[in-house]
Amino acid sequence: MCEKALKDINPKVITIPDGEQHKTFKTIEGIFETLIQHGFDRSVTLIAFGGGVVGDITGFSAACYLRGVSYLQVPTTLLAQVDAALGGKTGVNCLGKNLIGAIYHPEAVLIDPAFLKTLPPRAYVSGLAEVVKYALLMGSVRFFEWLEQEAQSILARNLSVLQEMIVTCCREKIRIVEQDERDRSIRRLLNLGHTFGHAIEGALSYGTWLHGEAISVGLLMVAFVSTRLGFLNEQALPRIKHLLECFGLPTALPPALDKQGFLTLMSRDKKSYEGKPHFVLLKGIGEAFVTEDVPLRCVEETYEHFCL
Amino acid sequence: MCEKALKDINPKVITIPDGEQHKTFKTIEGIFETLIQHGFDRSVTLIAFGGGVVGDITGFSAACYLRGVSYLQVPTTLLAQVDAALGGKTGVNCLGKNLIGAIYHPEAVLIDPAFLKTLPPRAYVSGLAEVVKYALLMGSVRFFEWLEQEAQSILARNLSVLQEMIVTCCREKIRIVEQDERDRSIRRLLNLGHTFGHAIEGALSYGTWLHGEAISVGLLMVAFVSTRLGFLNEQALPRIKHLLECFGLPTALPPALDKQGFLTLMSRDKKSYEGKPHFVLLKGIGEAFVTEDVPLRCVEETYEHFCL
Repeated sequence: MCEKALKDINPKVITIPDGEQHKTFKTIEGIFETLIQHGFDRSVTLIAFGGGVVGDITGFSAACYLRGVSYLQVPTTLLAQVDAALGGKTGVNCLGKNLIGAIYHPEAVLIDPAFLKTLPPRAYVSGLAEVVKYALLMGSVRFFEWLEQEAQSILARNLSVLQEMIVTCCREKIRIVEQDERDRSIRRLLNLGHTFGHAIEGALSYGTWLHGEAISVGLLMVAFVSTRLGFLNEQALPRIKHLLECFGLPTALPPALDKQGFLTLMSRDKKSYEGKPHFVLLKGIGEAFVTEDVPLRCVEETYEHFCL
Repeated sequence: MCEKALKDINPKVITIPDGEQHKTFKTIEGIFETLIQHGFDRSVTLIAFGGGVVGDITGFSAACYLRGVSYLQVPTTLLAQVDAALGGKTGVNCLGKNLIGAIYHPEAVLIDPAFLKTLPPRAYVSGLAEVVKYALLMGSVRFFEWLEQEAQSILARNLSVLQEMIVTCCREKIRIVEQDERDRSIRRLLNLGHTFGHAIEGALSYGTWLHGEAISVGLLMVAFVSTRLGFLNEQALPRIKHLLECFGLPTALPPALDKQGFLTLMSRDKKSYEGKPHFVLLKGIGEAFVTEDVPLRCVEETYEHFCL
């Protein structure tokens, strides 16, 4: 039965160039033209097979093609498996990251940790930054401790450890998104480290650093701001830094960063509302909260602190 | 109070070039860039002030900007007031009309028939084709008879007659869309005349004919097919043709039309499902239904019949 069903499927493969710098209108218009030229109608199902960029752009294509068709997420990178493929956020970049898009959910997300064995080390490690993000916001210190204990097995890509790690992150993401699909309240916590991180990516020009590398520094910048403003005790920052270093993630800003570009991008973050960016800060390892009250001076100091 | 509130609003006007041929990714990308450069965040409200093209493109911009912001429809053409501004269909053209888009509803639709006094005759008359469409599908012959009786007042743009006409069309559209937002069943009736009409527009290259002009001929082609297949009695076609002529709408295909282009576009219509375009046919004036069973031969014969 299954073989017969598969025989009736006549898939068309569309490949797109690698990297955040290709998550553009130009790429998506090419996808639409191919779909139209091959006569795909509303019965089509798009399959996002790849990392976060492929997932974002395929999901946004599905949201808009003929005003909406089905799609599946088959994430093959760690970053996409623990974060990007879930929650329905899709989109393209336009003067800033993910500023254009839709909330549009896939029919299913199919995750196989075995794909992670195929990743180059840098791409794999980059995804661990999002894993640390979950550990910092999920309401208890336990997952962070587990990551500290299992750091070597995680780096060795032990499949059963990977599976536990991925399931923990996905459960947490689903728990949050179910309560707040449209980023009005609790979902903003998932932006932990991303206001800084997106500004790093953008000011560097996409593709120089991987997303997770920017998020790694973004998470530390958040911990620094949180300590400076008196929310986080002083022991937390070195402990977070140590875990990120164990994983081989960067913990300082890249030397080539353009300061003015960075600050402009910070203010353009799409979680801004009435001109104020929302920051997600930490009260402890495992305890995050949203605030608008971060003085610009504090953002600038943080920038200076993380310059090598 | 109201004046004070208005003073606090700091609107930014974005104008786009006139005509269906500018309902493109290029135009929409320009809108996004302007919004981003001016720092508009999720608290922005876009206002679509203009005809159907402005409404479609503004609505689609609102659907995608920062993954969704508010918008208002303030339609200024007859076509937009009776049809395009209601129902949440938004989008851009890409190798075919409206193939890319979203279903995304405005916060409100503000209709003032006095705007219609400002339209050039051709643009005004073009909108009457959509009015005739409603008369052909709304379940009774009464509105069609009313149009026949009031044809002269309608052409004279008598405001109280216009108001009655617009309210009747809007009520019918809302009644249908409320039952079937996503075009799965009854909403397809609103496509009456549009499978032919979109193919005429596309094969002519957008901008040569106005949308309503193509729909006028599309409606007659539907009546012809319906008569030929034995669904519609022979008196209906000349009666529909007479009303369209009274309004000054075209009733034959334009001489320059490319037959092969027309037939390709017919098959690419986005209401196709599993390769078959859906046709909306007539059983009577006021009685429409959806079918897939229109032989290609019959489409070709209809094409030949309407060539001058």
